[in-house]
Amino acid sequence: MANAIRALAMDAVQKANSGHPGMPMGMADVATVLFSRFITLDPSKPNWPDRDRFVLSAGHGSMLQYALHYLLGYEDIPIEQLQAFRQLGSRTAGHPEYGHALGIETTTGPLGQGLSTAVGMALAERMMEARFGAELVDHYTYVVAGDGCLQEGISHEAIDLAGHLKLNRLIVLWDNNSISIDGPTSLSTSMDQPARFRAAGWKVIEVDGHAMDEVASAIEQARKSDRPTLIACRTLIGKGAPNLQGSEKTHGAPLGQAEIAATREAIGWPHEAFDVPTEIVSAWRAVAERGKAARLAWEQRLAASPKRAAFEAMVRGELPDAVRMALANFRKEHVQQATKVATRKASEMALAAINAATDMTVGGSADLTHSNLTLTRDMGRIGPGEYAGRYIHYGIREHGMAAAMNGIALHGGFIPYGGTFLCFADYARGAMRLSALMKQRVIYVMTHDSIGLGEDGPTHQPIEHLAMLRATPDIDVYRPADIVETAEAWELALSANKPSVLVLSRQNLPMLRQKYTAENQSARGAYVLREPDGERDVTIMATGSEVEIAVAAAELLAGEGIAAAVVSMPSWERFEQQDARYRNEVLGSAPRIAVEAAARLGWDRWIGERGAFIGMNGFGASAPAPDLYKHFNITADHVAQTARQLIAGKSRV
Amino acid sequence: MANAIRALAMDAVQKANSGHPGMPMGMADVATVLFSRFITLDPSKPNWPDRDRFVLSAGHGSMLQYALHYLLGYEDIPIEQLQAFRQLGSRTAGHPEYGHALGIETTTGPLGQGLSTAVGMALAERMMEARFGAELVDHYTYVVAGDGCLQEGISHEAIDLAGHLKLNRLIVLWDNNSISIDGPTSLSTSMDQPARFRAAGWKVIEVDGHAMDEVASAIEQARKSDRPTLIACRTLIGKGAPNLQGSEKTHGAPLGQAEIAATREAIGWPHEAFDVPTEIVSAWRAVAERGKAARLAWEQRLAASPKRAAFEAMVRGELPDAVRMALANFRKEHVQQATKVATRKASEMALAAINAATDMTVGGSADLTHSNLTLTRDMGRIGPGEYAGRYIHYGIREHGMAAAMNGIALHGGFIPYGGTFLCFADYARGAMRLSALMKQRVIYVMTHDSIGLGEDGPTHQPIEHLAMLRATPDIDVYRPADIVETAEAWELALSANKPSVLVLSRQNLPMLRQKYTAENQSARGAYVLREPDGERDVTIMATGSEVEIAVAAAELLAGEGIAAAVVSMPSWERFEQQDARYRNEVLGSAPRIAVEAAARLGWDRWIGERGAFIGMNGFGASAPAPDLYKHFNITADHVAQTARQLIAGKSRV
Repeated sequence: MANAIRALAMDAVQKANSGHPGMPMGMADVATVLFSRFITLDPSKPNWPDRDRFVLSAGHGSMLQYALHYLLGYEDIPIEQLQAFRQLGSRTAGHPEYGHALGIETTTGPLGQGLSTAVGMALAERMMEARFGAELVDHYTYVVAGDGCLQEGISHEAIDLAGHLKLNRLIVLWDNNSISIDGPTSLSTSMDQPARFRAAGWKVIEVDGHAMDEVASAIEQARKSDRPTLIACRTLIGKGAPNLQGSEKTHGAPLGQAEIAATREAIGWPHEAFDVPTEIVSAWRAVAERGKAARLAWEQRLAASPKRAAFEAMVRGELPDAVRMALANFRKEHVQQATKVATRKASEMALAAINAATDMTVGGSADLTHSNLTLTRDMGRIGPGEYAGRYIHYGIREHGMAAAMNGIALHGGFIPYGGTFLCFADYARGAMRLSALMKQRVIYVMTHDSIGLGEDGPTHQPIEHLAMLRATPDIDVYRPADIVETAEAWELALSANKPSVLVLSRQNLPMLRQKYTAENQSARGAYVLREPDGERDVTIMATGSEVEIAVAAAELLAGEGIAAAVVSMPSWERFEQQDARYRNEVLGSAPRIAVEAAARLGWDRWIGERGAFIGMNGFGASAPAPDLYKHFNITADHVAQTARQLIAGKSRV
Repeated sequence: MANAIRALAMDAVQKANSGHPGMPMGMADVATVLFSRFITLDPSKPNWPDRDRFVLSAGHGSMLQYALHYLLGYEDIPIEQLQAFRQLGSRTAGHPEYGHALGIETTTGPLGQGLSTAVGMALAERMMEARFGAELVDHYTYVVAGDGCLQEGISHEAIDLAGHLKLNRLIVLWDNNSISIDGPTSLSTSMDQPARFRAAGWKVIEVDGHAMDEVASAIEQARKSDRPTLIACRTLIGKGAPNLQGSEKTHGAPLGQAEIAATREAIGWPHEAFDVPTEIVSAWRAVAERGKAARLAWEQRLAASPKRAAFEAMVRGELPDAVRMALANFRKEHVQQATKVATRKASEMALAAINAATDMTVGGSADLTHSNLTLTRDMGRIGPGEYAGRYIHYGIREHGMAAAMNGIALHGGFIPYGGTFLCFADYARGAMRLSALMKQRVIYVMTHDSIGLGEDGPTHQPIEHLAMLRATPDIDVYRPADIVETAEAWELALSANKPSVLVLSRQNLPMLRQKYTAENQSARGAYVLREPDGERDVTIMATGSEVEIAVAAAELLAGEGIAAAVVSMPSWERFEQQDARYRNEVLGSAPRIAVEAAARLGWDRWIGERGAFIGMNGFGASAPAPDLYKHFNITADHVAQTARQLIAGKSRV
């Protein structure tokens, strides 16, 4: 059964003339033990909620997973898919891509992500179990990780969090082959990985990864552990290839026809390429039957459970109407009260309404709870062995938090949100990109969004981060200008089928919306906040904390008889999706000025050739926020002066 | 002496009404031992090469460093600077900023960066020592790190690398106060840090951070260790504040006047705010005298050393003329030969010339040596205890690599370059931003720069990364189109006083330059590569691998009598610095098309309102590169067709 994996992997990589045979061949024995004796999956219903989760963190070994899926009988992976490995339009992408093929639980490839995402899955399992009991929720999360996964920094954040929270349903099988791309791992590391995992509160078992009974016994122990388990599997990379096994040469290139022939000989596999004998296929398919039986039994338990409706609603993940109603009332109330607060505070107030209206939201912060304002009353905290709550202290681990949120969202049942300073989106980038690539409903609460944070200085003041996020496909960025836009952004983020980033101010901002509308105005991405009487002389566009400045400039100009419109642009992505007519109506034909305390990059699309940008030309500085706005000349006076110049026909600024 | 630090810290934070008193007060005793008994610094010549390096990795505790600088007599930190803590224009920024004040060795604040940068410094020290001997190079790198530094993922990469390389001159003093911003660290971590550091090959010593003799004894042992040392200092955050010490409330806010008065009482410090008795100032200044004597003795050794000229040249860091000559010859040769190679290969070939012409370059890769092509012949490898070489296997640690390169550059003596895939700039973002903020000559060799990498698929294919890098201030991005532009980019990067990113193709690209010019054409950022006869009908702009497509499109159009110019734009940053006349000349007045296999964001600046963009609208896919270019419609045919439409007056595409 293991040799079927080896043969399929080496043949598919050879046919594609691209890929990584070494890892699937080295881990074939471990994978065979895991899948044939332990993992509970049902290929005929790949997404049933109580299945075990399998995460191939060492995603370059994707042929391991595809070979398994073919052998187990996933209907979307017939043999032709293995023959089309890494080709345009096939399900068998170079790395496992969530959504491309059934049963792929998460996208992997960037090293360490799978392991860290699995922490979120394993946590979500415990949290669902705390709500619905072991009758409905009783599964494991298995990870295959390589040396690369364990060297990446994100692994530290992930294993510390998992160890702290005692996520005993998390079992990591480390492909301990001592080889990385440059050569032996001894070129670059002397880490005692077992000791390191023990230091993080993990159980560690060391085995020969080719001794199937040792592997099986280790998995059995791991399943009974009161903490997460690392099973260190000593393996030979490319195991079976008589001349190349144990060498980095098997890692990322086809073995070549000669070595493939020699491998067939060595492992006693006389079959043609992509040909697996019926009895071996049957043995694998029998494994799938075990999963099917488990699934059917679970469905009976669900049908009989008094918690069925609640469980299904959580798993379906639809936002309850109560949340939308709560947010509509919230907006109405604050328009009336003209509430002036920082948008981070507005977010906290909106969250209080949201978290009271649904149990699906799960909040947290990377140790900036009282700055991000992500904790609301009565959420209950998640801790070691305590999973009934809804608030996670992620620690000083932005990257681990983002990956864990991906895992929570992928697992199903919850809507995760988590906070840090916008500047530290840098630390979370790797996992944030995967939120987007997988279109997961993960909500990033990024406060302290500009020089407006003041004294902490340039290391904490985002400049390029809005451009970085806006350039990233499939992620919606919101930079609300006041409490109403903040609530609108929350509503859109909670309703989206992709990640969202809420970019929020530290400093207080006035309520700018002039009246309550049932329509969520931020949904169109940009809208006219102030339209002057008569024809526009100039349009001032701004986002977030700079909309206040734009409005003040427009008022200055109005005093001089200059008709300035103000456009609030909380979300470029949404504005781009509007039809040309709406966009032209908002942008107008008068010269345009953009105001944003960030890098210019990207704004020219909206400014046009005659326009001007007022924002940051370099890094920030350490001083009180009002001083910084003056210092960097992001003021109503400067906007007004620029408007006068543009109207007078001076050239582009 | 320690209470002077405490008082200055609490008073400065109070006056600024902003800042972090807890850490300086908690670590005042440790810092006093370190500075008064061990560290060799000379405030009157802060940059002498053999000084010890002090890195405040827990940068929010900046008042610890500023208080020390005042007490030690750094001339640019008189008491007025402490009184102007965190104010506009003062040297005493919220976090220590490299270049703002003498003796600040690196910018810190984003947690974990200082520790990881220090690894580069400690490595550079050993590398210089291997070249010049202990007579000229014999110093330590001391780090003060907090819980946050040790929780961040980057710390894992850094300590693994330092332990592996046996950087025994690296001594980390951990402020083990068990408090983070959200509260006790037990909210989010159960890590056994000493065990973890031991697993990474470190010596670990645990002490009471308020028992000065214990601390001193530990530092003495650490200085004799054959490996890096963690000194875990158990401390009380805010030590001295009778009602608040030990609480997270002292972390990031002023103590308040009442608690400050109570602290004065409790620690027996009856002096006014910012008033330090002369005898205590004198005691501190005496410490500085020890450093001065050491510096003078070192200068005598240098003066007498036969290696003096070579040492001074390395430390000065000027690029030898031999490198420029080698690169000029290189360009001439390859224009003549019309060499067609991937730009990553072109980079390797250029590096062979560069590394032969200077010893200052120090290369490496995050375990992608044979993909990034960063290793040239006879560089010699850096390994545990072996520091004479010039090539570093950074391991699968992009973030740690970037931070270590910052440290190597800051230390002086070398020009570091390091490789990974462009997509994994995501993992290195935190440290890359600091390269820019500190304007360090660090060169990032980022290969596999687009969908052109092919089968590895969307997780490995950069889309938004060019926008992210271009939006970052003070970093030059080069995306060369052929071997000549690659050599030009290397020359510019090596000559710069800031970081550069070389964005290089996996796939082969033809030589496009038509003749050799002594002038480095890439220095202007963009230039006309093909000018048609007669007036332009259209201008096609492109970078990197898409310039070939632009040229092919222009040739197609020429066949139809349409005059298309081709502009190669290897560096937007440099093009922006050109005068308006040159820019207008290059861009022309005809409609413009931009071609780049990446996100559009930012291109509108160059396209203008009538132009078109051909590139990526979302994430990539897994397939051979030629298939992907066709699939995403980034082809000469599509460019030509778009040109025809624009010329026919169709609206913006």
